[in-house]
Amino acid sequence: MKQELVDENASRVRSCIRRGEYAGPTSGLASGFVQANLVILPRELAFDFLRFCVHNPKPCPILEVTEEGSPEATLMAPGSDLRTDLPRYRVYENGELIGEPQDISHLWRDDLISFLIGCSFTFEAALVAAGLRLAHVEQGRNVPMYVTARECAPSGAFSGPMVVSMRPYRADEIPLVVSVTSRYPAMHGAPVHVGNPEALGVKDLNTPEFGEVVEIAEDQMPVFWACGVTPQAVAMKARPPLMITHSPGHMFITDRRHSEFEI
Amino acid sequence: MKQELVDENASRVRSCIRRGEYAGPTSGLASGFVQANLVILPRELAFDFLRFCVHNPKPCPILEVTEEGSPEATLMAPGSDLRTDLPRYRVYENGELIGEPQDISHLWRDDLISFLIGCSFTFEAALVAAGLRLAHVEQGRNVPMYVTARECAPSGAFSGPMVVSMRPYRADEIPLVVSVTSRYPAMHGAPVHVGNPEALGVKDLNTPEFGEVVEIAEDQMPVFWACGVTPQAVAMKARPPLMITHSPGHMFITDRRHSEFEI
Repeated sequence: MKQELVDENASRVRSCIRRGEYAGPTSGLASGFVQANLVILPRELAFDFLRFCVHNPKPCPILEVTEEGSPEATLMAPGSDLRTDLPRYRVYENGELIGEPQDISHLWRDDLISFLIGCSFTFEAALVAAGLRLAHVEQGRNVPMYVTARECAPSGAFSGPMVVSMRPYRADEIPLVVSVTSRYPAMHGAPVHVGNPEALGVKDLNTPEFGEVVEIAEDQMPVFWACGVTPQAVAMKARPPLMITHSPGHMFITDRRHSEFEI
Repeated sequence: MKQELVDENASRVRSCIRRGEYAGPTSGLASGFVQANLVILPRELAFDFLRFCVHNPKPCPILEVTEEGSPEATLMAPGSDLRTDLPRYRVYENGELIGEPQDISHLWRDDLISFLIGCSFTFEAALVAAGLRLAHVEQGRNVPMYVTARECAPSGAFSGPMVVSMRPYRADEIPLVVSVTSRYPAMHGAPVHVGNPEALGVKDLNTPEFGEVVEIAEDQMPVFWACGVTPQAVAMKARPPLMITHSPGHMFITDRRHSEFEI
């Protein structure tokens, strides 16, 4: 099933997920189409959260904010239904994970607002297209993510450190790695840090806070990108009465193509 | 007086304006520092307006959104006071212009939120640095601005067409013009349209809706950029009970340098 979905277009993959026929990770599906992080919050927190994202565009590049109560991403995927079109969700009450359903229709309310946030899949596709390798993919692991000592600009109840993802590259690859990913500012863009993890507040690369350890070769150095886990971590810390997100790796597949976000 | 302010740094120019010692246009002042459009709205409209800006980043690139009731732009200019640090403001009630004061301290309220929006002065400085000319400056006129047939993505009460500014360039200059300005996405970025005004819904270049006519030479074509007048025009059309903006050309001078926004 999964291989068929790689070559499908985005709306057909969403339909398949909506009908409950696929509930796995979305990495690689609907090749060429942008995937997005999802955060759903009640209206009362929406302005402060949106300002948080706008003030921290590297970890939290906003792709779309839905109308209050509407489950449709009218800009990124007309006809979509954010209650059913992701393979798996996470539901938090007061900051505590209470469930990981495949459908959130039963939880929907008229005061909910959805935020779609750029995802690293887009710049990873660009790295591969440029002939660069993805160590975590080759090693069959989730990308390692670390909580840094770098504080985001706070907004209302939302504050916290930036979370970064790490991919190792050789010294001679660094310039291309930076220039390729900098073309996608809406998808986290250029790295925030190259080399020396301690200067970023990351003490031990072998103990990532999220994801899995990836081996770094002798001739490689760690390269760090602002990560879409940041807004989720920050929102969780604010302990909103209700928050719904995608389940890690189970993203929202949009109708927009990577190239539309290349500058 | 004005010449002295060209070489001053941003905070000294703001102090000078705050003390009422300068009340003219800010073009060219505090050379090297970013200037910003200002829109101030009551809290009740802030979320819809911010979403409007986020969904229309070419005309409305958000640089900062202040905390409710705070007149300080803590990110772009720590220590600033948005009630006094612009040389001239425009005050609108229900969409009608009711005054153009040099100070808005007497109008300040605890529910006001300020939006700082990128301004074309940054990419104009980059064009000049690249050896390109600014026809409107050479002709001693304000840049001409036109209302297009291109609708912005609406948000709540906020909707309307994109407004563009126009600068003429020769065919052989167009590639450099595009690449230079594309490096500043937070300052309107690359042009939205090159040539044929009618395809953009601009019927007559001799009747700009804002600014002044600029002569276009035989060998030049019009180049159009999304313009910071768009969010003001859209906000005015929504007829908010109170809206305060900068007076055209009388911008907020920030402590951030152009180069910080170059990608």
